[in-house]
Amino acid sequence: MSKGFMTQPVLIAGKWRASESTGSFRPQNPSTGEALPDEYPISSWNDCDAALTAAAEAAVTLRGVPREKIAAFLNTFADRLDARKAELAQMANRETALPVSPRLADVELPRTTGQLRQAAAAAVDGSWALPTIDTKANIRSCYSAIGPVVVFGPNNFPFAFNGIGGGDFAAAIAAGNPVIAKGHPLHPGTTRMMAEEAAAAVAEAGLPPATVQLIYKVDRASGQRMVADPRVGASAFTGGRAGGLALKAAADKAGKPIYLEMSSINPVVILPGALTERGGALAEEYASSTLLGGGQFCTNPGLVMLFQGDKAEDFIAAVTSTFDKATPATLLSAEGARSLAASVKVLQQAGAQLVTKGVTPDGPACRHPNTLLRASGAQFLASPEALQTEAFGASALAVVVRDAAEAGSVIEHLEGSLTGAIYSAQSGADDDLYSKLAPRLRDRVGRLLNDKMPTGVAVSPAMNHGGPYPATGHPGFTAVGIPASLRRFAALHSYDNVREPRLPAALRDKNPTGTLWRLIDGRQTQSDVGA
Amino acid sequence: MSKGFMTQPVLIAGKWRASESTGSFRPQNPSTGEALPDEYPISSWNDCDAALTAAAEAAVTLRGVPREKIAAFLNTFADRLDARKAELAQMANRETALPVSPRLADVELPRTTGQLRQAAAAAVDGSWALPTIDTKANIRSCYSAIGPVVVFGPNNFPFAFNGIGGGDFAAAIAAGNPVIAKGHPLHPGTTRMMAEEAAAAVAEAGLPPATVQLIYKVDRASGQRMVADPRVGASAFTGGRAGGLALKAAADKAGKPIYLEMSSINPVVILPGALTERGGALAEEYASSTLLGGGQFCTNPGLVMLFQGDKAEDFIAAVTSTFDKATPATLLSAEGARSLAASVKVLQQAGAQLVTKGVTPDGPACRHPNTLLRASGAQFLASPEALQTEAFGASALAVVVRDAAEAGSVIEHLEGSLTGAIYSAQSGADDDLYSKLAPRLRDRVGRLLNDKMPTGVAVSPAMNHGGPYPATGHPGFTAVGIPASLRRFAALHSYDNVREPRLPAALRDKNPTGTLWRLIDGRQTQSDVGA
Repeated sequence: MSKGFMTQPVLIAGKWRASESTGSFRPQNPSTGEALPDEYPISSWNDCDAALTAAAEAAVTLRGVPREKIAAFLNTFADRLDARKAELAQMANRETALPVSPRLADVELPRTTGQLRQAAAAAVDGSWALPTIDTKANIRSCYSAIGPVVVFGPNNFPFAFNGIGGGDFAAAIAAGNPVIAKGHPLHPGTTRMMAEEAAAAVAEAGLPPATVQLIYKVDRASGQRMVADPRVGASAFTGGRAGGLALKAAADKAGKPIYLEMSSINPVVILPGALTERGGALAEEYASSTLLGGGQFCTNPGLVMLFQGDKAEDFIAAVTSTFDKATPATLLSAEGARSLAASVKVLQQAGAQLVTKGVTPDGPACRHPNTLLRASGAQFLASPEALQTEAFGASALAVVVRDAAEAGSVIEHLEGSLTGAIYSAQSGADDDLYSKLAPRLRDRVGRLLNDKMPTGVAVSPAMNHGGPYPATGHPGFTAVGIPASLRRFAALHSYDNVREPRLPAALRDKNPTGTLWRLIDGRQTQSDVGA
Repeated sequence: MSKGFMTQPVLIAGKWRASESTGSFRPQNPSTGEALPDEYPISSWNDCDAALTAAAEAAVTLRGVPREKIAAFLNTFADRLDARKAELAQMANRETALPVSPRLADVELPRTTGQLRQAAAAAVDGSWALPTIDTKANIRSCYSAIGPVVVFGPNNFPFAFNGIGGGDFAAAIAAGNPVIAKGHPLHPGTTRMMAEEAAAAVAEAGLPPATVQLIYKVDRASGQRMVADPRVGASAFTGGRAGGLALKAAADKAGKPIYLEMSSINPVVILPGALTERGGALAEEYASSTLLGGGQFCTNPGLVMLFQGDKAEDFIAAVTSTFDKATPATLLSAEGARSLAASVKVLQQAGAQLVTKGVTPDGPACRHPNTLLRASGAQFLASPEALQTEAFGASALAVVVRDAAEAGSVIEHLEGSLTGAIYSAQSGADDDLYSKLAPRLRDRVGRLLNDKMPTGVAVSPAMNHGGPYPATGHPGFTAVGIPASLRRFAALHSYDNVREPRLPAALRDKNPTGTLWRLIDGRQTQSDVGA
């Protein structure tokens, strides 16, 4: 058979059509190392260009679509994904080696469809747009759709962060924008199935066909060209730092918003009183959190800070033992395992000492030993950058500090992270130390935790899955949590003296739903203007 | 006398001290072309570095300062500026040639102090920070101070947008950040006086001395280094495009937020029915708005679109006559007049035809004739970029289009602007045309006006003094309008399972003021958690 026949089509302008490709790729099953049967195209710029044109038209049409229809799409799409759960989980498992149960079928897919339904509710409610009315000046404002959004999905969450159906997708659509998804090449089959359900739901809801489009892979130049294209409203990227920064540079230069979620070390600080009170339990909790999903979580706690002493040694010994006993997970790719090994080498060269056995397990190439390294506070301070090298997988660095002053210095040398956790004694013994260190950690992370590991990321209105650079590109935005995540994909629109019938429904005198929250003359209210 | 003695000191770490300068400059009186007596330093990187270090320390202290003290500072500062009004207006007039009355003393200074007081009220109220509480997940979030803010003030508003005391300053301080102001070198004396009052108010309120710092001028490299410095939280810039883009590139590369308000053409579309109904009045309104402040407003309506025909010719003739009769304003600088002349030449070379007399008036060099140019829609579409050349001053381009289709194309070739206005017939005769053109214009501007010129920028919660690139760097932020302008200088902080007494007051169970608006479990409320 000819290559053209075998290669999967892309979804552009509502049609599954042959890609104008520059090549093709086949995903592998990481558990077996074998290539999976389907071949996927590497799209040329022509595919991107066609998708951008179609998305720009869809964006115009979407402006006039009632938000109930957008919500209907999101809900139908969620229902369709739920209905196809077994097949989706099987495909995702084959492509990522993540376990079908509980991970894929019982945790990640329900989270994904729950998020789509929350986004649907937010679209109907409309309060996310912060409608604001100044009756005296007759000026009114709200956030409105920003235009076509390009979403680059990551490798590690085939459902929940997928370019089709994941958090960025849900937020961009709920804010009224079409999405062009660049699927991750490690799980194209999962992405294709999700796109099939999305396309069917688009048709059922009667949205413009180009509301959802999919390409699987592009060369770097085309990716960078897409995020800078005049037809684009904004882009979102979840992945590693090098790829994210290259896209950021291109988007920044063109003045196009791009929201990035890049690597993050997610420090965990365990204060001495907590270690004394419950060191054994904390070692278990830390080890579980670190090993979760093969350590391939954006919020994986890759650095733990301990205060030197016997209890710290016990903690390290306990984590080491758990790491050495646990079977290393099959990682998402052989390349991931190689990259992790290279990072561990960099950490060792920077002075960190390997404390786990470090024996590469037998079996397929997509494995890497569970790895714990240690360094003193002084070593960390001597090479803070190298000792924060991105190490995606089950690898962690214990930094053992001498005292509070050194702990403070280490914290001040931490790069921006998504999360930071502090464990302190229930007795209050650590309270002074907490009040010294917590403010410094606070400034370096998006989400501060107490007595809790960061690996659970609730889809909560109060969630911040964001943080200071280089964890993201801007500390004011979150990738998870509705309503805030929607505002990333919106422009602020002010209306000055615009005739009332010409205003968007959210800004007219009458509250369009009776439940929309609006700031009218400084007061949050669900009433009509003048009521 | 030695140069060191004459040169004005800079304000760093609470002290007026001699600059470590690389040179000095003297401002001119634009009305006379004479150099003013005081000499001001061009700061070396050492000044910037010292200010950044002091600001970083102040930022830490400010975290623990009750917001009432921050509000007290803003109010005291406003009172002090009001008390010194006559002297301030005189100095600003001398440095900018803007009239003392009504402009400086009766409009701009009251606006400035009113804005400081609004910022004070917002600081005390706290609702700007969007406190959000999810009781079930026990996650809470709000916006918090981002860290030291560097504010680059523009030339055209010596009070209202001054790096000390202007809108960015007020917003940054109210959000809890120290400010390093880079004054504009065209009005250093005004800025110095404002800084004197700010420093006195800082002392009275008991804020950290480095809450407000001032340098007058730096070389480009130091400016770019400042916005990218690790000690900085964010920067704000108001000014021309070239300077703004250079700072943006430096800040972007370092992952530091920067908010820019750059040049903007502010298109005005006059639909045929409106022209028929009230063409004479509209010509007067347009001419006045264009000439206001010598045309040196960010919202100056530099492009007017008319539909071809006799009424359009009448409009152009009326504006031409007003422009030719009005005495050209003294501009802010001779350089500004030269730059405007160069821009007008570029517009002419791109095909625009000069319709005003274009005779340079006698007197000092800081003048440029009031200028109206015209081009057809076809000409505009042939050179859309050149015909949108930044022309800061009383210069406007009338684009005369053939029909609705051409009008739509012209709008689609407009760059992002702060504002866009549409005038339509009261009779409803233009309603169809409005509904075709308004959505396209909507996407290209931050504030859409009906039957109103854009030059008034109310300090309203619903204001958007922002817009798509290249008018600004991000379409989601506004430089004017409280509470939204404060959120630019804030990071999103989430607290996950953090013990209640350790939370910021805004996120504890008890509503700290009884009036703070919080989103608790999806409901906007002023109640306590659990109430």
